[in-house]
Amino acid sequence: MTLFPTLASLRAAACHPPQGDAAAAAAAEARQAVLTKPPGSLGRLEELVAWLARWQRRPAPRLQRVQVLVFAGNHGVTAQGVSPYPAAVTAQMADNFAAGGGAINALAAASGAALRVVPLRLDCPTADFTTAPAMTEAEFLDAVQQGGAAVPEGCDLLCLGEMGIGNTTAGAALAAALFGGTGWAGRGTGLDAAGVARKEAVVRAALARHAAALDDPLEVARRLGGFELAAILGATLAARRRGVPVLLDGFTATAAVAPLALLAPDGLEHAQAAHLSAEAGHRRLLTALDMTPLLDLGLRLGEASGAALAVPLLRAALACHAGMASFAEAGVAGRAA
Amino acid sequence: MTLFPTLASLRAAACHPPQGDAAAAAAAEARQAVLTKPPGSLGRLEELVAWLARWQRRPAPRLQRVQVLVFAGNHGVTAQGVSPYPAAVTAQMADNFAAGGGAINALAAASGAALRVVPLRLDCPTADFTTAPAMTEAEFLDAVQQGGAAVPEGCDLLCLGEMGIGNTTAGAALAAALFGGTGWAGRGTGLDAAGVARKEAVVRAALARHAAALDDPLEVARRLGGFELAAILGATLAARRRGVPVLLDGFTATAAVAPLALLAPDGLEHAQAAHLSAEAGHRRLLTALDMTPLLDLGLRLGEASGAALAVPLLRAALACHAGMASFAEAGVAGRAA
Repeated sequence: MTLFPTLASLRAAACHPPQGDAAAAAAAEARQAVLTKPPGSLGRLEELVAWLARWQRRPAPRLQRVQVLVFAGNHGVTAQGVSPYPAAVTAQMADNFAAGGGAINALAAASGAALRVVPLRLDCPTADFTTAPAMTEAEFLDAVQQGGAAVPEGCDLLCLGEMGIGNTTAGAALAAALFGGTGWAGRGTGLDAAGVARKEAVVRAALARHAAALDDPLEVARRLGGFELAAILGATLAARRRGVPVLLDGFTATAAVAPLALLAPDGLEHAQAAHLSAEAGHRRLLTALDMTPLLDLGLRLGEASGAALAVPLLRAALACHAGMASFAEAGVAGRAA
Repeated sequence: MTLFPTLASLRAAACHPPQGDAAAAAAAEARQAVLTKPPGSLGRLEELVAWLARWQRRPAPRLQRVQVLVFAGNHGVTAQGVSPYPAAVTAQMADNFAAGGGAINALAAASGAALRVVPLRLDCPTADFTTAPAMTEAEFLDAVQQGGAAVPEGCDLLCLGEMGIGNTTAGAALAAALFGGTGWAGRGTGLDAAGVARKEAVVRAALARHAAALDDPLEVARRLGGFELAAILGATLAARRRGVPVLLDGFTATAAVAPLALLAPDGLEHAQAAHLSAEAGHRRLLTALDMTPLLDLGLRLGEASGAALAVPLLRAALACHAGMASFAEAGVAGRAA
């Protein structure tokens, strides 16, 4: 089934995202209040349970099927020397994931999550967006579609990440186009200061080249993004429809879905920022999106690593919610009057 | 076996803590450098593996046996109205843990950790430290001993926490005595502003009462602490000897071990702050101890909840370290020259 056959249908879906279940969230919150702990003392864990309830649309949320999706794509802009690694590494790392040797393999397994890596035309990079739109409309819609189609039936939580040499440059270009300002380019996989300056110049050139089209968030995603970024956007949209909460990985994944927040103010309410990446622009991007990351451990790997790392926090939140006794059950006295 | 029969032997042990294994840490770091990821891109996860290697004194650290210890004690200072909950709740919560109904039961299970709750003379609170030392020397040494004895043989990681109505007041008094300044009193289980002011006055009274003895960190622990705080100190000292890294829970647990950092500059190097509690003084206390918490999720429950919550981060770090392929194994190209 084609989710969004045209740019117009994609736009319509992004502008009118379905709502969560407020009653389910309220039921989860009400249970928190009777458990054997001072009110609110589990902090964000309590909020996370209500969030899962709202977007799974279930008063007692579950995390039986957690899916990690890593979308991989190649980028024509690597011709501008924006990464210390050759573009061939994208496919080599996809093979490494298939063989079980990547960080995300270890992290998904440790989190009890299934992992699927989706390579998107790795032999066919996007166009260099300093000279042309990264994708045609058909290419963009196809990548969005592949992302949406990758969300499995019956999934309880989706972790979204990417692999693509050069894609922090795409992320920086998206962020600059959507939120303005300069200085979005970061070190990526390990650029030195001269490399970051070159990357910043590439972003500036891209914005100049596409200046006439930057007031449309979807056009920004098509012109400055990449296949794997478009797929992450598609998966996030599809997850919203299917009652699947989303954990977003780092800078590039967050930039990929940022257009959804500009098309609808609550467009990313079903998504959490799993972590704060060490990549320069991530904190600023999360601030612009009003998202508070769950973890801040200096990761800057991508490949959904930070998203998978945060899954045990949600499992722990649910374990407390489902497993704790109430004050009445345990015979524990409440607060003094 | 009595670990520290006298205050002098306890002091000697605290002043000369055994060292970690620098070669084991270096071996772990060397392996990080060849795994299929940009150098340093797993951030703090890489540091945690080296830390585990150093303090387990093993180049390939493991987390097969993770032990959560929750020490429980009662406090004479509750007579001053420093908690909205009656002191009877300490024993009721210990019973709740025994029956499996507490947050820590759920969190320990979710983290694959064993849980032991150690009640310390719950029918016999410490003295009210605004009028007398909380503990006699014999009582203090006995609590330290019980903490040390609770560290099991063959343990790979220890999570330390506490339960004790009134013990954030003890923690605030310790912090104020050890690091100076005012404003260490926080909301605890949920005081209002008037309650916090009352608690602050109690801390001030305690410091005035014991002013002549506050230049000795162990005397501070004896006079202003509590049984469960002394036990946490004892467990932390014993863990250092036995090659067991420690995850500390929140404000009270951190205050309990702070004397060790003052007795030896590296006295807490084998311990990590698992999380930043929402309790007011915790950030300041961690800053004073130069510790960076692993999590910051607004928890303020105690009972080792934050420590147990951080265990999956260490498991994930080890899973990457043990499970990832090297660049050579995976046939992935390295950085451009």
